[in-house]
Amino acid sequence: MAKRRAATRTTRAGLPLIVLSTEPGLTLQDRIRRAVREAVEAGTLPAGSRMPSSRVLAGQLGVARNTVVLALQTLLDDGVLSARARSGLYVAEDGGTPVPRLETIGGPSEANPHQAWRGRFRSAEIERSAFRLPPDWQRYPFPLLTAQFDRSLFPVREWREAQRHALSVREMDRLTGSAGEADDPLLIEQIRTRILPRRGVSARPEEILVTAGAQQALFLATELLAGPSTHAVVEEPGNPDMRRLLARRGAKLQLQPVDEAGLVVNAGLSRADIVYVSPSHQRPTAATMSMPRRRALLDSARENDFLIIEDDFECETHYLDRAYPAIAGMQTDGRVIYVASLSRILAPALRLGFMVAPPEMIEAARRLRTLVSRHPPLNNQRAAALFLSLGHYDAVMRRLSRVLRLRLLALRDALNHYLPQWVAIPPIREGTTYCVQGPPDLDSAALLNEAAARGVLIEPLDDYFGRADPPRNMFRVGVTSIEKDRIREGVARLSEAVRALTMDVSAALPADGAGSLRGPALRKAMRGATLLCRTVYGDPCTIELAPDGAMSGRAGADGEDIDTGRWWVEGDLWCRQWTSWAYGEVSRLRVRITGDRIEWFRPEGGSLVDAGVLARTD
Amino acid sequence: MAKRRAATRTTRAGLPLIVLSTEPGLTLQDRIRRAVREAVEAGTLPAGSRMPSSRVLAGQLGVARNTVVLALQTLLDDGVLSARARSGLYVAEDGGTPVPRLETIGGPSEANPHQAWRGRFRSAEIERSAFRLPPDWQRYPFPLLTAQFDRSLFPVREWREAQRHALSVREMDRLTGSAGEADDPLLIEQIRTRILPRRGVSARPEEILVTAGAQQALFLATELLAGPSTHAVVEEPGNPDMRRLLARRGAKLQLQPVDEAGLVVNAGLSRADIVYVSPSHQRPTAATMSMPRRRALLDSARENDFLIIEDDFECETHYLDRAYPAIAGMQTDGRVIYVASLSRILAPALRLGFMVAPPEMIEAARRLRTLVSRHPPLNNQRAAALFLSLGHYDAVMRRLSRVLRLRLLALRDALNHYLPQWVAIPPIREGTTYCVQGPPDLDSAALLNEAAARGVLIEPLDDYFGRADPPRNMFRVGVTSIEKDRIREGVARLSEAVRALTMDVSAALPADGAGSLRGPALRKAMRGATLLCRTVYGDPCTIELAPDGAMSGRAGADGEDIDTGRWWVEGDLWCRQWTSWAYGEVSRLRVRITGDRIEWFRPEGGSLVDAGVLARTD
Repeated sequence: MAKRRAATRTTRAGLPLIVLSTEPGLTLQDRIRRAVREAVEAGTLPAGSRMPSSRVLAGQLGVARNTVVLALQTLLDDGVLSARARSGLYVAEDGGTPVPRLETIGGPSEANPHQAWRGRFRSAEIERSAFRLPPDWQRYPFPLLTAQFDRSLFPVREWREAQRHALSVREMDRLTGSAGEADDPLLIEQIRTRILPRRGVSARPEEILVTAGAQQALFLATELLAGPSTHAVVEEPGNPDMRRLLARRGAKLQLQPVDEAGLVVNAGLSRADIVYVSPSHQRPTAATMSMPRRRALLDSARENDFLIIEDDFECETHYLDRAYPAIAGMQTDGRVIYVASLSRILAPALRLGFMVAPPEMIEAARRLRTLVSRHPPLNNQRAAALFLSLGHYDAVMRRLSRVLRLRLLALRDALNHYLPQWVAIPPIREGTTYCVQGPPDLDSAALLNEAAARGVLIEPLDDYFGRADPPRNMFRVGVTSIEKDRIREGVARLSEAVRALTMDVSAALPADGAGSLRGPALRKAMRGATLLCRTVYGDPCTIELAPDGAMSGRAGADGEDIDTGRWWVEGDLWCRQWTSWAYGEVSRLRVRITGDRIEWFRPEGGSLVDAGVLARTD
Repeated sequence: MAKRRAATRTTRAGLPLIVLSTEPGLTLQDRIRRAVREAVEAGTLPAGSRMPSSRVLAGQLGVARNTVVLALQTLLDDGVLSARARSGLYVAEDGGTPVPRLETIGGPSEANPHQAWRGRFRSAEIERSAFRLPPDWQRYPFPLLTAQFDRSLFPVREWREAQRHALSVREMDRLTGSAGEADDPLLIEQIRTRILPRRGVSARPEEILVTAGAQQALFLATELLAGPSTHAVVEEPGNPDMRRLLARRGAKLQLQPVDEAGLVVNAGLSRADIVYVSPSHQRPTAATMSMPRRRALLDSARENDFLIIEDDFECETHYLDRAYPAIAGMQTDGRVIYVASLSRILAPALRLGFMVAPPEMIEAARRLRTLVSRHPPLNNQRAAALFLSLGHYDAVMRRLSRVLRLRLLALRDALNHYLPQWVAIPPIREGTTYCVQGPPDLDSAALLNEAAARGVLIEPLDDYFGRADPPRNMFRVGVTSIEKDRIREGVARLSEAVRALTMDVSAALPADGAGSLRGPALRKAMRGATLLCRTVYGDPCTIELAPDGAMSGRAGADGEDIDTGRWWVEGDLWCRQWTSWAYGEVSRLRVRITGDRIEWFRPEGGSLVDAGVLARTD
């Protein structure tokens, strides 16, 4: 025993140092293989030299001998090591450097290399939003973002399971066999039978093309349909990348306004060749296009003979009982290219989407896709197909809807509480985001920085506007990346940032509170009053103040949101406390009444908090 | 016991039929989940109905109860089933159809749907080769193809291992977190340190962009660098998709000839703005560009101020001791965009490639890539990076080189034996393919069919030619998809197909053998003769016929390929047998000598087999 130890120590002392990497995700065997390989490549284990025995190596590395034996066997299979009869393992003569390492004669990083390129490429054509998320955005405590995904919502277990199936021997055979233009037939079938029926769309297999995300589908559509003579109508505000894709083709762009029912359909569409629309949740406003508007758009398409590119953005976050069907499912004459993404269900990084269109269009798009990038990776197509066929789609849809809906409600409550005088446009009750319009003097770029300094990330909206002078006082807050319980604090910090930037002096009360109601007058004015307000998300809100200090409120488009509370007066401050609204907390405010207008102010600083109409006083 | 059985039977009789799918690749648990889900969706298990107990289900399905319990638990998690206290599992009220299935109002497949689309899209711009592999090409016994991959060469085990690592929790987190423009830094690092040094190229991370296969890299380069005012030089014959990409941009195309040293560099390049070149293995000829030619091209680029797009096609199949460095590694002024694929090492279906260029170009290409398809899927990028970092790249390279080299030698021997009078151009000794030029009257399209009828697949070459009248008598045979031992039989069958199509009457001997040498005269003419031939692959071959019947041969560019054998005369036929050449088999041939030209003919039918020069007779 003592002897063996000594021998080991001696050998160990003479051994080249083999250091196991600590990179996670690797098995011990992998680490050994990698370490040996790197030692060979570095010359630490010279070609032709004898390898230490597995026992010695196991001792040196402090791992089980079996593990070392298996690792060495693989290195032997790979030709890194070679075996000599009765003599053990050696580093192969050509093991470390089978293909000669070439001496670098020059290379792009040498000398004055880029002169040749100056002005050669048309990069200026592709403008990019000035706004870019910080790369470490996930480390911010309050990412009030949309489109960025929440890892906690990703169906890790289900996806891993689908991937494992896709790694079966039989599936791997498929991978190596195919190199054609075709998509995975199983994925096409799953899209056809599981996803499209939920959107009211029926399609034959030859009417579906899998794409590298919805973005590639939009690219293929614009390349095939738009040119310098094309009159293209896009939403304003709208998807900036769609504007850029059309601009690349030299198309004439018409910026058509958006309201709470989606793209405005009017005589402005009469000259259109193509109309791009995101009816499920308009980008960026999240407005859902109403059914009458959808029908009007289809009528206009027939009348004016244009085609519709329907971007079914965030179709999976319908919270209402009944989703509207996609426009592609309402048409009778095949004028719609339907584009959707699987990224929300799977993960943005997997880049899978699809296009539904008449077979001629799909055939043309398939040819173009082949020319520019062949097909989206078949291993991911198959894994997605298995994921869908195992029924995970419905389950994840349900989970997403439930979680995101609760988050959106939390956001709406927080905005209402902390930024009540601001306007969320248009009023929405679906999707994952609110567009917020601040006071005219707000500079959203400054707010972005001010908020980020407080750990809050928001998204500016100027890139969504095609017009030359986008409003600078708008931004977007979203809930795809933040837990429900963190939303309130995030919005509270955002409102601090807002206050730090926008001191609307004209709207503020003087420091001494001059103009606001005092003690008894205040109590008298409020007793029995009915207050008509609007919530920040655009719904009407009626508050009744009973003479006995009881308070009841009713909000929502159908008055479906009700609450009760108490109100009272403390000195010159009007106080209120709801049971659940405004987090059930006590608010103390100064009140000014001018005619039938009632305004609330913060006691400290005197800034305007909210305003409404005093409908009736007893 | 008897009672329990009876109860089971009764319940079983009343059970809706749940049929497990037999689709491979699914675990038993998955099958149960899918079957229950389908039964719910089909209404066989109505919403709200009570589920049979796990014991009963296990009995019905003939599986372990534990398996059923786990499957039911997942269905419960997914909301397909719901649990009621002390009462068991029920089909959830909304379990089967959580999102309402919309009635299809219309859809692309209705009525007369495509009228709206006629003439709207520019599909005609994307021509496509008339040749398409049969979809079931893998079932042909002799696929003499290149570019199609051989599943037996795919590193299934290694790739599956890398994918498994990429599915670790930590890696999955990355997937859901990122949605930016960036590639996987680990893959960039592996390309930079493992692949590029072998090609003599050094690059910084910001000089590398991962692409959806080499094809997307070529697309990005042409989009950024070519326009109507661009004078673009391409190889003739050459990559047809490159011509199409340039044509899309409206570039002026110049078809520059290719010889055995690759693209011809001459004054024809003086007007070039861009030159596309595939120096490792020219597509389709597989010619490797010589070092002097590479230097001349770089000199010409400087002199004429053009950029080079270097497609390092099949760089992994260098069989020589020392590969030439990529042109990108020889430059001193950064004029080269280097494009390569990882598909040969991984699998074509995974679609990964990359581009190396100056940072400004990479930045522009990244923007464009983002606009057209975002980034290649990060799960595959990470799996590829792990695959490389575990050292599999070198191992697979070595295996590929070894196998493909032996196959190419087998193909060359077979062509030499069965189609000796044909010409393989240019003479090559690397790559995976021979271009073959048949007699002028050969119609390669007809040969394709004739060969396919014999189970042999070959590839026509006309699509590789940009000129209006591509030669019809050329085709390509390759070895990426056929086992070495099947190559001889494949070529033998191909030569049958050739003979069935091309009876070159003018070259044939008359049926009575008139004009050929007879018995003693034949022996006299051959005794002591030296014959100068060319092999089908273009190398010189010298055969010496000793008076005593011994025979020695020397072939190859440096005479490195030698063999010995016996020759003799049987009646009016000259007979020979090599030790290893011509498979060591006996050949019996008629001989005609005209001046110093010697021709061999098949005794049956009299068709020409081969010809040479009679250098000297004793």
